[in-house]
Amino acid sequence: MYYINPNIKDLFRIYDQNSREGYLRLDLNENPGGLPDAFIKSVLKDVDSEFVAKYPETLEFTEKLADFIKVKPNEICLTNGSAEAIRHIIEIFTKPGGKIVSVAPSYAMYSVYAKMYGRVHVPVPYNENMTVTAEDIIAKIDDDVDLVVILNPNNPIGDVHSTEDMEKILAAAKKHFATVLIDEAYFYFYPNSFIEFAKNNEHVFLTRTFSKLFSLAGCRLGYVTGQADGIALIQKACTPHNVNGFGIKFAQAIIESGMIENMVAEQLEGKKYLADSLMEKGYEVNMREGNFLFIKPKTEAKALTERLKENKILVKYYNNEMLGGFIRVTTGTKEIMQQFIDILLKLDC
Amino acid sequence: MYYINPNIKDLFRIYDQNSREGYLRLDLNENPGGLPDAFIKSVLKDVDSEFVAKYPETLEFTEKLADFIKVKPNEICLTNGSAEAIRHIIEIFTKPGGKIVSVAPSYAMYSVYAKMYGRVHVPVPYNENMTVTAEDIIAKIDDDVDLVVILNPNNPIGDVHSTEDMEKILAAAKKHFATVLIDEAYFYFYPNSFIEFAKNNEHVFLTRTFSKLFSLAGCRLGYVTGQADGIALIQKACTPHNVNGFGIKFAQAIIESGMIENMVAEQLEGKKYLADSLMEKGYEVNMREGNFLFIKPKTEAKALTERLKENKILVKYYNNEMLGGFIRVTTGTKEIMQQFIDILLKLDC
Repeated sequence: MYYINPNIKDLFRIYDQNSREGYLRLDLNENPGGLPDAFIKSVLKDVDSEFVAKYPETLEFTEKLADFIKVKPNEICLTNGSAEAIRHIIEIFTKPGGKIVSVAPSYAMYSVYAKMYGRVHVPVPYNENMTVTAEDIIAKIDDDVDLVVILNPNNPIGDVHSTEDMEKILAAAKKHFATVLIDEAYFYFYPNSFIEFAKNNEHVFLTRTFSKLFSLAGCRLGYVTGQADGIALIQKACTPHNVNGFGIKFAQAIIESGMIENMVAEQLEGKKYLADSLMEKGYEVNMREGNFLFIKPKTEAKALTERLKENKILVKYYNNEMLGGFIRVTTGTKEIMQQFIDILLKLDC
Repeated sequence: MYYINPNIKDLFRIYDQNSREGYLRLDLNENPGGLPDAFIKSVLKDVDSEFVAKYPETLEFTEKLADFIKVKPNEICLTNGSAEAIRHIIEIFTKPGGKIVSVAPSYAMYSVYAKMYGRVHVPVPYNENMTVTAEDIIAKIDDDVDLVVILNPNNPIGDVHSTEDMEKILAAAKKHFATVLIDEAYFYFYPNSFIEFAKNNEHVFLTRTFSKLFSLAGCRLGYVTGQADGIALIQKACTPHNVNGFGIKFAQAIIESGMIENMVAEQLEGKKYLADSLMEKGYEVNMREGNFLFIKPKTEAKALTERLKENKILVKYYNNEMLGGFIRVTTGTKEIMQQFIDILLKLDC
C-alpha cells in the first residue's frame, strides 16, 4: 500500500479566503480600509525587473525591523505570515504525542497543527465571564506539555493577561521544560507587549504579523523573535526563500513612514465609535483588546450574518456555546464603522 | 530538558539569497534579464489598498492556470515556490525512516528535507558521462522506498529521460508502492513535459515554479498538479494563505500575455549563442536542457568564480568530484550572454 500520513489524511481544514472581493470585509481582522492608495503607489513606483526576477533580499529589512523592535537581526526570523512561524515552532519544539496548551476557542491553527503533526492539543476553556486566569492555564501544564501558547491579546475574545500573570505562567512552563509561544498578531491595538520575555528567556518566542494593523495580508509577511540560538533553529526549518519581495518592501516602507501611531489612533477611534454607537442603541457589546468587537445582535447571529452578506458586508458568527449569540466584527476607521452601523440597524430587527 | 527536534538541530542549511543586488546574477537560474519594465508597470498599475490588505484570492488564477496547463482546477495546489510543494509531498507520502530516491548531485532540498523529516535520502549517482539511466534509478527502488524523484530536466546537469524510460521508472515505483514526484522547475526550456503521467496516475505529482522562465523569483509562486484526491491532501498540509497576491497577479498576467513563446525563444537563442561563442574559443561546454550551461574554464573554477564576482558577475562552482572543474552559468538573452563572455575572456586566462 502507498503510505499516506494519517494525521494529514484525517485533517479537516477550512478555506475562507476566496470570493471576498468587493465586500466590506469585517470577518477576518484585516484592516478593512487598508493603506492610502498614494502610499501604495509611492512604494511600487521603483519596482523593476530585477526586483521581480531576483530571489528576495532579506538582510536590509531584517536590520531595519530589528532596530524598530529593539532586538538584534539574528533574533528575528521572517516568515510567510506568522502562521508559518507557529508551524515551525511546533515542528521543532514539540514531539509526536507531546501536548500543546492554548486557550480555546482561539486561532484555529493551534489545534490544526497539533493534529497535523500528531501532537495533543490541550484546550484551556474560558470561564463564564469570558476570561481565562493564569491559574486556569497553569493547571494544564505538566511534564507532558512541550508548548504553552499565550495570545496577547487573545483572538477571538480579546482578553489579556497582566505582566504578573505572564511571569507566573512562564515560571510554570520553565518548571516543566515547556517552550512558550507568545502570539502577538493583535499587538499594536494594545500597548502592553510581552516582547521582553522573549528577549530575556531561552525557549520563549514571540510571533507578529503584518496582516492586521500593517494592512499587508495580501503580501504575506510575519516574523518570530526570540534569543539567537532558538531563532537559528527556526530559520533552519524554513522553506528556502520563504518570504517575498513585496511583503518586505511594503513592511519596510511602513516602518520608515512614521505613520504607525496615526494608524493605531484612527483604528481605535473607529472601534470606540462602533461600540459607543451600538451601546447607545441598546446593544450588548463585548469591548476588549484587538481590532474586533463582539456584538450581541437582536436577531439570530447566523441568519444576520447571511443578511449582512447579501448586503455586501462580511462578519463572523460562531457555532460554539459561549460565542453562539454573538457576531464578531473587525473594526476600522470611523467612516467604515458608520457604513456598517447604517446597514446593521436596518437589517437587525 | 526542553525538547528540540534532533533532525532540525543537526541540520545544515545554506542561505544564498542575499547581497546579490546590482550583480549580473548567473548563479541561481533566475531569468537574469527579467520581465520588461513596461510589462511590470502595466501589471502594477491597478494595485490598490484592497489588493494589498486582503488575504489573497486564489480561485480565478487557479482556474486560468488549470486551463493553461489543461487540467482541472482541483488538480492544482498553489504553493509558496515549488520548494513548499516538495516539502509537503515528503510530509504526506513518506514515513519516518522511509527512503527518498533522487539523482545526486541535484536540487539540494531533496536531501535537506529528507534529513529534516527523518527520512533516508538514497542518491542515484551519475555515470562517468554525466547521465543516469532508468536502470540506475530502478535499481534503487525497493519496498522501503516511499518516494521517487525525477527532475525533468535535471538540475544541475540538465539531462533528461525519454518517455519510455519514464514509463519503466513509473512501473517500478508502482510495483513497490512508491509515490513519484516529477520536478519540472526547468520545464519551458525543454518541450517534453511528463505532465500526462501526473494526470493519468494516482500517486504521481508534478511540480513547477514561476521563478525561472516566468522571472518571478521575487514573488514566490509555484504549484503542484496531480489527481484531485492527492492534491486535496497536499492542500490540507499547506500553511493558511500560503501564496501572496503579487505572485498570483504577475503569473496570471504572463499567462494571459501570450509572450511565453517569445521568452523561451529568446532564452534558448542566448544559450546557444553562449555555447557557440565559447566553443569557438576552445572551451568545453556541457550543453544539455535548462536555462544553464556547464563550462570548463581554463583556470581553476573556484578562483575564477571569485574573480567574476569582483567584476560584478555571479556564477556557481561545485565542490564535488564530477563537477569540480566546471562553472555553472545561468543563461539569458544574447545581450546578457555577450556581457558575460566579454568579462570571462578577460579573466579566464
